[in-house]
Amino acid sequence: MTAFRFELLHTAPGKSRRGRCHTAHGLVETPAFMPVGTAATVKTMTPQDLEAVGAQIVLGNVYHLFLRPGHELIARLGGLHRFMNWRRPILTDSGGFQVFSLGALRTIREEGVTFRSHIDGSARFLSPEVVMAVQEALGSDIMMQFDECPPWPADRDYVARSMELSLRWGARCLAARRPDPEGGALFGIVQGGMELDLRRESAARLVEMGFDGYAIGGLSVGEPRELMAEMLAQVPDLLPANRPRYLMGVGKPEDLMAAVAAGIDLFDCVLPTRNARNGQMFIHGGVINVKQARFREDPNPPDPRCGCDTCRHYSLAYLHHLFRGREILGLRLMTLHNLFYYLTLMEDLRRAIQADRFQEFAREFYSSMTGPS
Amino acid sequence: MTAFRFELLHTAPGKSRRGRCHTAHGLVETPAFMPVGTAATVKTMTPQDLEAVGAQIVLGNVYHLFLRPGHELIARLGGLHRFMNWRRPILTDSGGFQVFSLGALRTIREEGVTFRSHIDGSARFLSPEVVMAVQEALGSDIMMQFDECPPWPADRDYVARSMELSLRWGARCLAARRPDPEGGALFGIVQGGMELDLRRESAARLVEMGFDGYAIGGLSVGEPRELMAEMLAQVPDLLPANRPRYLMGVGKPEDLMAAVAAGIDLFDCVLPTRNARNGQMFIHGGVINVKQARFREDPNPPDPRCGCDTCRHYSLAYLHHLFRGREILGLRLMTLHNLFYYLTLMEDLRRAIQADRFQEFAREFYSSMTGPS
Repeated sequence: MTAFRFELLHTAPGKSRRGRCHTAHGLVETPAFMPVGTAATVKTMTPQDLEAVGAQIVLGNVYHLFLRPGHELIARLGGLHRFMNWRRPILTDSGGFQVFSLGALRTIREEGVTFRSHIDGSARFLSPEVVMAVQEALGSDIMMQFDECPPWPADRDYVARSMELSLRWGARCLAARRPDPEGGALFGIVQGGMELDLRRESAARLVEMGFDGYAIGGLSVGEPRELMAEMLAQVPDLLPANRPRYLMGVGKPEDLMAAVAAGIDLFDCVLPTRNARNGQMFIHGGVINVKQARFREDPNPPDPRCGCDTCRHYSLAYLHHLFRGREILGLRLMTLHNLFYYLTLMEDLRRAIQADRFQEFAREFYSSMTGPS
Repeated sequence: MTAFRFELLHTAPGKSRRGRCHTAHGLVETPAFMPVGTAATVKTMTPQDLEAVGAQIVLGNVYHLFLRPGHELIARLGGLHRFMNWRRPILTDSGGFQVFSLGALRTIREEGVTFRSHIDGSARFLSPEVVMAVQEALGSDIMMQFDECPPWPADRDYVARSMELSLRWGARCLAARRPDPEGGALFGIVQGGMELDLRRESAARLVEMGFDGYAIGGLSVGEPRELMAEMLAQVPDLLPANRPRYLMGVGKPEDLMAAVAAGIDLFDCVLPTRNARNGQMFIHGGVINVKQARFREDPNPPDPRCGCDTCRHYSLAYLHHLFRGREILGLRLMTLHNLFYYLTLMEDLRRAIQADRFQEFAREFYSSMTGPS
């Protein structure tokens, strides 16, 4: 049913894992971070840039591509890989998260969700079946089930009903999947809010249905860090060791570190790209914002320990100048750096796990952090 | 007094010329087109991109750099080349054109021009001496004299007085120049509006003063094409053959072709970069705008005859999609293409002149043009 296969290569002391996803578009060494390419572009970057900074896989958003330019158009043009000139694997989210963020603009029913497009206000409909058709039309290597992502805080009854709805939708996604030995993987999504027993129920029933991988949704939605840590300490253990585990929408470098320690394999997050466009750069030991006046005449690179093109060729003073002038090149150079930082961190992490020194690596990482980021 | 030297390599039948500028930062083979890097960046492009598309030299704007981040700051950081990481030659304009464009915000006197910054409204002052100090602080390879650029239309008296002022300012620039064997060249600027006798007077007196090169200013300011053609037919002949001739702020590909035929060596223009950001692409035979609905599902590259990265990897449909979504990558890919188009045209032109087949080349170029661009 799919070209996808996950290989668990090594489990270090503790729970961190080294793995490998095989897809029709090549390998993804895990733990891996996926840059977010919302509208068929990781903002400011070419695919060559992405390969140069070490991106193995990017994420595409069903919600955005469904609305513009439309999955059928992309399919007629040869699929999403060809459309955006990206040869490596693509994971597509199911659109659920974006649709539910629309608030008053959407109506959830058993059948699916009716909503108004944020682009032109037109009435649109997404359901498990539509979302599968969209992801298959795009030619996704890893498809996500349609799910509901409850907000935080939410009352237990709502979270429980929502989890049940997501389970029924997951089953419909499995049923709607087109039989295709070259097709993409389909991942189920564990929901259940901050209720451990609901998470347990959700995980058990998804595993029973049998997905190619499992995601943990509904975290990093505004809850306190301790709650997320509590969930992370338990939920990965509910999932089969021989399937990849994907923590959706997380996070800061220290969150990735903590999640890898808990046994997570895959991540996506807009932080490195979106924050770059706000002037924030992730560097060894913390974060800086180039718009600060103290960088006005600073001849140093953003991160002296970094080997990216931005840090090798440009000063903070120049980036500060570009940012103040709203120059596109500034957004581009900062995005390049942040992605390099995230992807190099993941590479270092993988090497540390392989060498059984992940805990040492994590300790050094945390002790280098200066103040809150 | 300068590291600059111009070598006239070949004059083809007709007036077109092949030459070479020697500067402290390397050679510029002429005829050459200079991408405009207003605020220490050719918008959306890295220096590596610029080298890859064949840029030999870029233009920096004194007006913009003087206001932000300031020439003294750039000097303390090692000069403009280092600041923006561009190793090849830089020409700086004198700021005159921008200042005079400010209209009511500026006051012209013999001493110089007082104006209000468009950034913060502060009162600022530029004069021949200040402009020389700015260009020397930036480390420019080719400096331009401070001049007044009269608008079109303007009455003859005004144009005559303005020309005389520019001549006096030119002499003051020469006098203010720092003695430095490694310093940049200084170019005089021929003014005189659309009055041939004033142009003649301006050119003769500048040549008498002795500049390293000569620019023709005050064209492409809104006058009919025939008037510019009339000036171009005459003014270059008033300038010494052994000095480079620079036509400021021009223009469309067909304008460059006509100006090369008239004996011009250097060009700068915002068209390829600015128009890219409006969706316009220069292609063999004319121009297209990617925002047009007819490109919505077009699987072809913008220009099938073009070898740039954009045309080799992306469809019109993808560029249309990026442009509609206001994606930065679209602006970048279109800028890359337009600069490649302009710079490849110049390279082809140089080869044609060298082989004594410029007129044939120009004929083919014009006959390929489809409709007005």
